[in-house]
Amino acid sequence: MSELRWDPLKQHWVIIATERGRRPRDFMVEHETTDAACCPFCYGLEGKTPPEIYAVRDTGVANSPGWKVRVIPNKYPALRIEGNLNSRGFGPYDVLNGIGAHEVIIETPDHDRDMAELSPAEITEVLRAWRARFLDLRRDTRFRYMVLFKNHGTKAGATLSHSHSQLIAVPLIPPVAATELRVCKEYFSAKERCLICDLIDFELKSGERIVREFANYVIMTPYAACFPFEVRLYPKRHAFDFALLPDAELAELAVALKDMLTRLRSVLRDPPYNFILHTAPPRHPRLGKPGYWSSIEYDYHWHIELVPRLTQIAGFEWGTGFHINPTSPEDAAAFLREAGA
Amino acid sequence: MSELRWDPLKQHWVIIATERGRRPRDFMVEHETTDAACCPFCYGLEGKTPPEIYAVRDTGVANSPGWKVRVIPNKYPALRIEGNLNSRGFGPYDVLNGIGAHEVIIETPDHDRDMAELSPAEITEVLRAWRARFLDLRRDTRFRYMVLFKNHGTKAGATLSHSHSQLIAVPLIPPVAATELRVCKEYFSAKERCLICDLIDFELKSGERIVREFANYVIMTPYAACFPFEVRLYPKRHAFDFALLPDAELAELAVALKDMLTRLRSVLRDPPYNFILHTAPPRHPRLGKPGYWSSIEYDYHWHIELVPRLTQIAGFEWGTGFHINPTSPEDAAAFLREAGA
Repeated sequence: MSELRWDPLKQHWVIIATERGRRPRDFMVEHETTDAACCPFCYGLEGKTPPEIYAVRDTGVANSPGWKVRVIPNKYPALRIEGNLNSRGFGPYDVLNGIGAHEVIIETPDHDRDMAELSPAEITEVLRAWRARFLDLRRDTRFRYMVLFKNHGTKAGATLSHSHSQLIAVPLIPPVAATELRVCKEYFSAKERCLICDLIDFELKSGERIVREFANYVIMTPYAACFPFEVRLYPKRHAFDFALLPDAELAELAVALKDMLTRLRSVLRDPPYNFILHTAPPRHPRLGKPGYWSSIEYDYHWHIELVPRLTQIAGFEWGTGFHINPTSPEDAAAFLREAGA
Repeated sequence: MSELRWDPLKQHWVIIATERGRRPRDFMVEHETTDAACCPFCYGLEGKTPPEIYAVRDTGVANSPGWKVRVIPNKYPALRIEGNLNSRGFGPYDVLNGIGAHEVIIETPDHDRDMAELSPAEITEVLRAWRARFLDLRRDTRFRYMVLFKNHGTKAGATLSHSHSQLIAVPLIPPVAATELRVCKEYFSAKERCLICDLIDFELKSGERIVREFANYVIMTPYAACFPFEVRLYPKRHAFDFALLPDAELAELAVALKDMLTRLRSVLRDPPYNFILHTAPPRHPRLGKPGYWSSIEYDYHWHIELVPRLTQIAGFEWGTGFHINPTSPEDAAAFLREAGA
């Protein structure tokens, strides 16, 4: 019997269609890679990208070899940094200018190593780059939220195969984050407990959907997963803001993130995937209301959500907001647990 | 300058990134078709499908040749018809059994003609089949909503290329419909006007996003379109429930629908697409509350939404709920207007 399951954080229903019971081998997706010869992210070709914003370097000056991680502006940004928001009405609609920042974090000089293959020390440098860019971008008071995400593989929207993540600063809280922030705030006002802490507690006691537990982190599949092998990485202790993590916690996060990516790679043979960092927005001034600031979102609980891109979104999913997931999160967790890392 | 635009019906923001300004020829997608030899929807192979639920026939008995439109249960349903909902809590979550109906409407006996190539009279028979199935399924009081949609092309999720649409009856109002219904109801209580009637009025006066106007229907691109060449078909006069349309209006709708599909086919060379019928839910009994019924959703305004599948949904869109649309709805409308039908 298939089930409809409710996610209290996302506020959505999902159809877990277990009768279609699909296993990892049903999902193998062909991989396409881009040629190293013409890759602008490669070592020694620093002049092919816009000038770097941030870099971890052993040697060398900016925009020359000697780097381990490099952050550059996206050459084809979705949003531009120059200008004012100019929020306004237009008939029954509303519109504002497409102001934002769009950066690329090149995670390694090596064209052929993906994030799962980097060492924990190398991944730690990537996480430090993320944190540094979060902290820098939030000084720009036009930006309401920073979206940190990774597209891995052509099927997941990556145009270059050289390992990289992206950071987009947006002038509005995105709808998905807005829902999670609102729900966490309402839950905390009613109960003086964090919703996500409560979900983690329940999952650790149940164990069915736990993939791996670390001292301070846990990897699990969500009860109402929209997609096969959807997986999340949570800090076990309440923490609302990724950008405030101390170095020691970044180092353990690197170990947990590598573990999660390695298990997926092993079970699904290097699947295309997207992951997104969900974190609290920076405190920001209210648009057009001098002296007014937003509150700090202490009630939120940051985490990373990963979706392997194994199935297609068709008419039903797009038109209803319901997803049909042919692999139960319990089966997915069992496969990932057994995989080893 | 790109823009962020607000859709007051969908309650979402979209990024119109006009600087990427993509034109129809940038979007050509390869088409794959399935072989007629092994197509279970083909004329003369009626025994290959589950027994038919509804058919338009000139001659012949059920499940034999002689038909023009045929409705059958989906062989691999997402939801099953047998059983009870058994709505219940599960720790911090909620769950109910996957009860529903999943039907396939085979739109023509001819393997090689897609919906755009059918005559208005043939499309009218398809619309009558939709209406008949809506009216029949709403007699089952476990079903809260019927989702009528079409996947055209492999890239849009169609597993068979023989022209067909699908109808899924679900035991909950889907999230996308729930938002639209709530927003229309709130708008009407505040203003005693229909939100969608007001949007259509504004668009007809502006003209920028109008593709084609008929006596009772209008085809337009939405102001805050999430995808390139997204297009909608609205009845101009207020009507909340597709299933209550009289025959004469179905016949004109067939002409308008064919016009919309033909223009898309011409501008984008037979693109993969999904369309969905958005309509009011049937009046339904409140789960577990004998004697309580839902109100009738008079404030809603039914319509058809179509999305050509030309771009990928990557990490940013999935993780934020923001979409980045590289073609402005004004440009898309101009291309579709000029195309002729």
